[in-house]
Amino acid sequence: MKAQILLSALVLSVSSVLANNPLPSWNDGAARQSIVEFVQATTTAGSADYVPPAERIAVFDNDGTLWSEQPMYAQLVFIFDRIKKLAPQHPEWNEQEPFASILKGDIHKALAGGTPALLKMAMATHAGTTTEEFEQIASEWIATARHPQTGRPYTEMVYQPMLELLDYLRANDFKTFIVSGGGIEFMRPWVEKVYGIPPEQVVGSSIKTKYEVHDGKPVIVRLAELNFNDDKEGKPVAINRYIGRRPLMAFGNSDGDFQMLEWTTAGKGKRLAVYIHHDDAKREVAYDRNSHIGRLARGLDEAPQRGWTVVSMKADWKVILKKR
Amino acid sequence: MKAQILLSALVLSVSSVLANNPLPSWNDGAARQSIVEFVQATTTAGSADYVPPAERIAVFDNDGTLWSEQPMYAQLVFIFDRIKKLAPQHPEWNEQEPFASILKGDIHKALAGGTPALLKMAMATHAGTTTEEFEQIASEWIATARHPQTGRPYTEMVYQPMLELLDYLRANDFKTFIVSGGGIEFMRPWVEKVYGIPPEQVVGSSIKTKYEVHDGKPVIVRLAELNFNDDKEGKPVAINRYIGRRPLMAFGNSDGDFQMLEWTTAGKGKRLAVYIHHDDAKREVAYDRNSHIGRLARGLDEAPQRGWTVVSMKADWKVILKKR
Repeated sequence: MKAQILLSALVLSVSSVLANNPLPSWNDGAARQSIVEFVQATTTAGSADYVPPAERIAVFDNDGTLWSEQPMYAQLVFIFDRIKKLAPQHPEWNEQEPFASILKGDIHKALAGGTPALLKMAMATHAGTTTEEFEQIASEWIATARHPQTGRPYTEMVYQPMLELLDYLRANDFKTFIVSGGGIEFMRPWVEKVYGIPPEQVVGSSIKTKYEVHDGKPVIVRLAELNFNDDKEGKPVAINRYIGRRPLMAFGNSDGDFQMLEWTTAGKGKRLAVYIHHDDAKREVAYDRNSHIGRLARGLDEAPQRGWTVVSMKADWKVILKKR
Repeated sequence: MKAQILLSALVLSVSSVLANNPLPSWNDGAARQSIVEFVQATTTAGSADYVPPAERIAVFDNDGTLWSEQPMYAQLVFIFDRIKKLAPQHPEWNEQEPFASILKGDIHKALAGGTPALLKMAMATHAGTTTEEFEQIASEWIATARHPQTGRPYTEMVYQPMLELLDYLRANDFKTFIVSGGGIEFMRPWVEKVYGIPPEQVVGSSIKTKYEVHDGKPVIVRLAELNFNDDKEGKPVAINRYIGRRPLMAFGNSDGDFQMLEWTTAGKGKRLAVYIHHDDAKREVAYDRNSHIGRLARGLDEAPQRGWTVVSMKADWKVILKKR
């Protein structure tokens, strides 16, 4: 019995240490406090702000919020890599923009074509396979591709403080969802392993698909037509369509997340909206108002009056990238 | 200590009774056995067919599988009730089909217009509100509407054996999803309470929606345009889009569920497909090949050669409707 009591005391004290310091890579400041206080208020039985576990939904943008989006979105690198890999089957690409520029290594010229050029490249590289084939392609790419500046796999370009936050929220019975402008089928093959978020809790942009039976084997074929662009006003629409209830907490880093944070905080009762601000030029990249990727202007302007939390990566995070 | 041992023994014996009889309203036959054996094979550690909890996905059609769909889909009754309620604001409906026939009580004439007429009525009654307003409308309807033959609320027109099955699967760490041709926002307000299935695990047909800010208040507006028809080939497409992994088990009752069962069982490893066959004219309604609602012909023909389970409501179920 004595050993049992000792063991119980030990378990209690370990739990209490964890409970007292659930976010070890976060400095103790206003941002960390706003998160911890929100979780305590909504999960403590008897609290005026208590929310039952079933309603504890937290949504996260991916690019720039959970993992790095500089110098360019990982999925864009994937598109360029796929174009190079598929080029032998498409001799016509040597003459056709934006493909010709990509094959010559001139990304800027390729992207000068704007959204139509980007859409053309996305369709050429994301459609024309079955969903199973595409899962394989995305899995192989993410396993072998390396970030151009750090040389680390993209799956290690994720933010340590955000991994701790995901764990902390799940330990408090929050269901964590990704709501990203990125492709839903580009993310699903790897996010469960990296973030602990299962495929059914991943919301993103998508292309149309079609069910067919080939020689008795059913397949879902990916079509070269956009189904849904999960960005800006699209994010609350997708949250409603996929999740069907309003989140309690929303985390983003750009104006593309503004409506998601706005929709979240317009709900009844206590809500929390958090912007991750990329202000650490030394340990990562400092960018906001004037960035082509992850532009954050309206969000910075309105966060104070709306009572949204702004996390300074420089001041609030002890480390940036996932610990090895 | 003695009391503790007694208590433990009691708990063990209660658990073992539950484990031995998890589906009390199912007669012990081949159908019940195929389900129980499948669950044991996929959840017993060390079994050759073991599947980790994260991958235990079970999908259920709703109309005719979890609740009654005769003499007519509940959502169709909802549409007719809404037309009558909205009629004073639409004097033009007195002259316009299919509305005029509904207002005169002639459902057959209204439905004679086929899919276009149905779509017209669906859009007139499902669009034009915010999502919050529609949730309120659907909630009020489901709370007050009564089944025309039994006089019971529709939420009691659910099948007792299926409620037990949902509980049994969840007790074995299966995640249960609805994948229905019915409207996703028509179902979400009530399915959690009735089936224990949360909104984020409800997949269905949907109309397009749009995010807007009205006087500083963000709303999602329901538009009079079909977004997705979750029937037949649409079901595997929706499963892939919403859930992102192939189910282990699928339950349906009509040819509209055929592709969902086909997609499920084409996955690697052990899979289970189950058709609920409405063959009990005495306790419910007997219908299959020639029914306008819930037609089941191809499914009945091919189930034996495909190794799919067919549940006879007459032979396999001790009771049909939910116990009061």
